[in-house]
Amino acid sequence: MAEEVQVFGYRSGSFSRRIELALKLKGVDYEHIEEDLLNNNKSDLLLKYNPIYKKVPVLVHNGNPISESVVILEYIEDTWKHNPIFPEQPYDRAQARFWAKYIDDMVVPAMQKASLSKEEEREKAIEELHKKFEPLENELKNKKFFGGDEMGVVDIVGFVFAGWIPAIEEAVGFKLLNHKFPNLRKWIDEYANHTVAKQVLPEKDALVIFIKNVSLKRKY
Amino acid sequence: MAEEVQVFGYRSGSFSRRIELALKLKGVDYEHIEEDLLNNNKSDLLLKYNPIYKKVPVLVHNGNPISESVVILEYIEDTWKHNPIFPEQPYDRAQARFWAKYIDDMVVPAMQKASLSKEEEREKAIEELHKKFEPLENELKNKKFFGGDEMGVVDIVGFVFAGWIPAIEEAVGFKLLNHKFPNLRKWIDEYANHTVAKQVLPEKDALVIFIKNVSLKRKY
Repeated sequence: MAEEVQVFGYRSGSFSRRIELALKLKGVDYEHIEEDLLNNNKSDLLLKYNPIYKKVPVLVHNGNPISESVVILEYIEDTWKHNPIFPEQPYDRAQARFWAKYIDDMVVPAMQKASLSKEEEREKAIEELHKKFEPLENELKNKKFFGGDEMGVVDIVGFVFAGWIPAIEEAVGFKLLNHKFPNLRKWIDEYANHTVAKQVLPEKDALVIFIKNVSLKRKY
Repeated sequence: MAEEVQVFGYRSGSFSRRIELALKLKGVDYEHIEEDLLNNNKSDLLLKYNPIYKKVPVLVHNGNPISESVVILEYIEDTWKHNPIFPEQPYDRAQARFWAKYIDDMVVPAMQKASLSKEEEREKAIEELHKKFEPLENELKNKKFFGGDEMGVVDIVGFVFAGWIPAIEEAVGFKLLNHKFPNLRKWIDEYANHTVAKQVLPEKDALVIFIKNVSLKRKY
């Protein structure tokens, strides 16, 4: 069956890149439709497909739209079962879902807060961020990826770190991760060298400029 | 195989009741372990099993702990496949996951805000809540439950409305749902009459007293 797969996304953000990465890991061809979020100029189709949140990413599969990045990742796994991105065993799946949710609920807000922090509040914000990163550092002990030898859903959700931390650090001029996070640093390197992931990772210099010029003035 | 299933919960709250309801719908026997959250007197086992959030619910299955109520519901479905609580088709599953997440991300905070609102801010808070409820009202058009003829995961996550709205309304003395939400009202009635759900629903009069005495002084 000829399938139609479209991703409504925004490549200067990180959430729709999760979807692109998952599809590429599965080897599923898709059409990317870039939304002009910078000018808040959202397409009619995006508003139609995601009337609740009016946000990217939206995956449209044979005309059927799905929103919310982790919901989309589950759909991708349910639909294209080869090259699994979720563990097979129920308990391992639950752990992966737990950490994926933890990243979005706990780490992303702390990372935004630290990145945007003013100098006088920075130390505290970075300390808070480190607390949130600690369990993830621990999860990576003796592992190449959160998914083990291969990338899994937690790695894909973690795109928000892997793709952004090096560029944010350069743009803002301070470190988000210190020497206490060797596993996460190594993981970021593994990510950058991963044959599929590196096709999706943003080009660092361009991202640094983007963050300096635009993103730090709003929410990235 | 003799299975050991434990639910660490708090029966005056609603999140661990989701887990009890799902297990009952599946016909899975479990042991309930009540945590004394009222006095913030959490057991050592709870802290051991959920070191990240230190919250209920935790499901412990043959010694393996799982936290976060929706993650637990997914685990329950993956582990005990009979009497499914998720739709079978990937697209329908995605929709169910979307609405389950919507309830926790969007409706629960709005409901807390409206319930705890002071008189001068109430009208606005209720209006906000209604906006959040509208899509759910629409989802229930011509359906008995969000899951269709049978309860599904969205109904289970919606326990937080079904179990609480009537009691909150009585305790606070104003309505959270008005005449624009006939489907949700009908759904609350269906819930109360559901053979399995009514075993888990809190007894209303006791809940009203609880909300008046305790819950409105904190976050419920």
